[in-house]
Amino acid sequence: MASNSSQPADLDASKVIVTLATELKPVPSLADLASGGMSQAMTDHMVLASYDPVNGWSAPEIKPYGPFTLMPASSCFQYATNAFEGMKAYVGPDGEPRLFRPEKNMARLARSAGRVALPPFNPDELLKLIKQLVTIDKRWVPAAKGHSLYIRPMIIGTRSTLNLSISDSALLWVMCTPCGPYFRSVRPLSLFAATDAVRAWPGGTGEHKIATNYGPTLKHHQSAQAAGHDMNLWLLGDKITEAGVMNFFIVLRRDDGDLDVLTPPLDGTILPGITRASILSMATAHPSRMVLPGLSEETRLHSAERALTMPELEAWLVEGRVVEVFAVGTAVVVSPIGCIAWGEKNIVFPTFGNALGPVSKALRERILDIQEGRFEWEGWSVPCA
Amino acid sequence: MASNSSQPADLDASKVIVTLATELKPVPSLADLASGGMSQAMTDHMVLASYDPVNGWSAPEIKPYGPFTLMPASSCFQYATNAFEGMKAYVGPDGEPRLFRPEKNMARLARSAGRVALPPFNPDELLKLIKQLVTIDKRWVPAAKGHSLYIRPMIIGTRSTLNLSISDSALLWVMCTPCGPYFRSVRPLSLFAATDAVRAWPGGTGEHKIATNYGPTLKHHQSAQAAGHDMNLWLLGDKITEAGVMNFFIVLRRDDGDLDVLTPPLDGTILPGITRASILSMATAHPSRMVLPGLSEETRLHSAERALTMPELEAWLVEGRVVEVFAVGTAVVVSPIGCIAWGEKNIVFPTFGNALGPVSKALRERILDIQEGRFEWEGWSVPCA
Repeated sequence: MASNSSQPADLDASKVIVTLATELKPVPSLADLASGGMSQAMTDHMVLASYDPVNGWSAPEIKPYGPFTLMPASSCFQYATNAFEGMKAYVGPDGEPRLFRPEKNMARLARSAGRVALPPFNPDELLKLIKQLVTIDKRWVPAAKGHSLYIRPMIIGTRSTLNLSISDSALLWVMCTPCGPYFRSVRPLSLFAATDAVRAWPGGTGEHKIATNYGPTLKHHQSAQAAGHDMNLWLLGDKITEAGVMNFFIVLRRDDGDLDVLTPPLDGTILPGITRASILSMATAHPSRMVLPGLSEETRLHSAERALTMPELEAWLVEGRVVEVFAVGTAVVVSPIGCIAWGEKNIVFPTFGNALGPVSKALRERILDIQEGRFEWEGWSVPCA
Repeated sequence: MASNSSQPADLDASKVIVTLATELKPVPSLADLASGGMSQAMTDHMVLASYDPVNGWSAPEIKPYGPFTLMPASSCFQYATNAFEGMKAYVGPDGEPRLFRPEKNMARLARSAGRVALPPFNPDELLKLIKQLVTIDKRWVPAAKGHSLYIRPMIIGTRSTLNLSISDSALLWVMCTPCGPYFRSVRPLSLFAATDAVRAWPGGTGEHKIATNYGPTLKHHQSAQAAGHDMNLWLLGDKITEAGVMNFFIVLRRDDGDLDVLTPPLDGTILPGITRASILSMATAHPSRMVLPGLSEETRLHSAERALTMPELEAWLVEGRVVEVFAVGTAVVVSPIGCIAWGEKNIVFPTFGNALGPVSKALRERILDIQEGRFEWEGWSVPCA
């Protein structure tokens, strides 16, 4: 797209060119989605826009999902100039799709893209395009509790040169796939603490949602699963950072009978999860601002961000203070953690059969109520239309 | 390619399908290449092969360099399942192209690919394909001292799913571009020690040539250049790891008058550079096994791998022991380092005008002699044909 202005054009949702698929794909049934995780099926359409240093952002397109063409020397392959997001759409009680705190995903994507020096884009405009895409593909949003449409916005560097240099060209797209509950059934996860590998470190990239944080974890994930665990626990020294690709929480009984809901602080090694922030915020709100389902008003929760070490976990277990341990994330929402294999040790937490503990259950119920539009809370749930 | 065997096929150079370009591109002149760095021009052809879990490696192709098509959900974009190599071809005295210790690049690529859980390939077969590609494109190998054809083999994950999982599909290719000397002229580099960012960490990926090590460094590189430096020095605490994308060397005068040639050890945070290994090996060989050009037989070199810290550098400067500091790598070969900005300090090393110091000059002359086929040494230089 040629431009006469001297400034490269920003992303502009009003310029969108919509080309609808002439043949629509079959949508997976709820039964198909019951097996856990995401579907392999992508929805009918995607958002696509490109950036070049002269013209800036192209007019965005919504078009049938399908392959695209890149030069082999593109920056994204050689130098991992790739950032992405994970977010979900839910069917509201009105039958219409809605998003959960999507402005947080947009802001994080902009920060992540900046970390790998990709060109900036207007996050508000991208959100408009995502809403339009979800509205067009709304028959793909499964209408059942705990089900959703997983949405992946991505931006990659497409500058084509072998020189190690900032990518002044980029491709941005949004693709979607329907998903059921992340795990086939709720059951406490078994984690394997990686002691020979670290996911993130001070001065690294752990707080950004960029491709570099994922590829190097795959072989450790495979080893953990081969040894009978569900995923890795990522440590930095003896400090807990993340559980798989989820944020880690522990609930401790205090001397005064109240409960502490603790998660590691955002020290640069931890993804600032939107579910994480929401869980902290909801725990703080109980019982004064809202009562969480199934939790007594007498149960006072104190949420806090603080470093958590493996020896502390062990000590708290010995003291009988651990109520429950769980992990949270966009894909999994909330999942109980049953044990951590750490070197020679197997650290076992209280569990509640194949169910969540009292606090995580209350938090999961409430966040699903908010996400699926049954409970209005601070504008977190945003209709697409 | 369907296969009847139960094992997925390995990469097999004998199955190569060669499709030559019908129109050849103009080759940049030596004058074009004199401006430093790599050309933007890719050669006429590339190697391409794909892997799928049923058939294994496809019959490789040598075909005109050009774009390829990928699904948006490919693993390489989301999870940086990308590994690569950097190597060079040189014109020998016989006019024929040759490679430098290419089996080392092949082995490192196989290790790097394994680190991001990509499918294995036969490195010997890939080397055969690279030799064939360089032979076909040999008019692109510039015939001048310090000039070469830069060769980039790559392997990326192409499994198309939003699930975070090992990529059981891959694409492998080799592309080439001619290059002149890395810098327009030899001049001591000014480094900016990054104190807010860390390239690599124990348990991370610093020893592998994978995309994840590069994207996160781009904005720091840009900041360093904006502040008038050439590149970053990467530290871990006060320990030196790498200079830009090069390995770091220091030459110290010992009490007995001999010279120590020191570089940080391969502790997992440092790329095992092939130039690095060759420099260590050549320094060890002088003077007993070969006399380096311009260096006296009386000058005894002792090469060693040992941790180097910033305070040590400062102390050695005060003691007057520092002879010279330099960086080495495939692209740059050998380059002098003049100073390091480290917090409030500017640490200044002895320099030799716009020239290398005595040891690095001798090492650079000899490695170019070996690479360009003028000096036979331990089979390091390998003819393509």
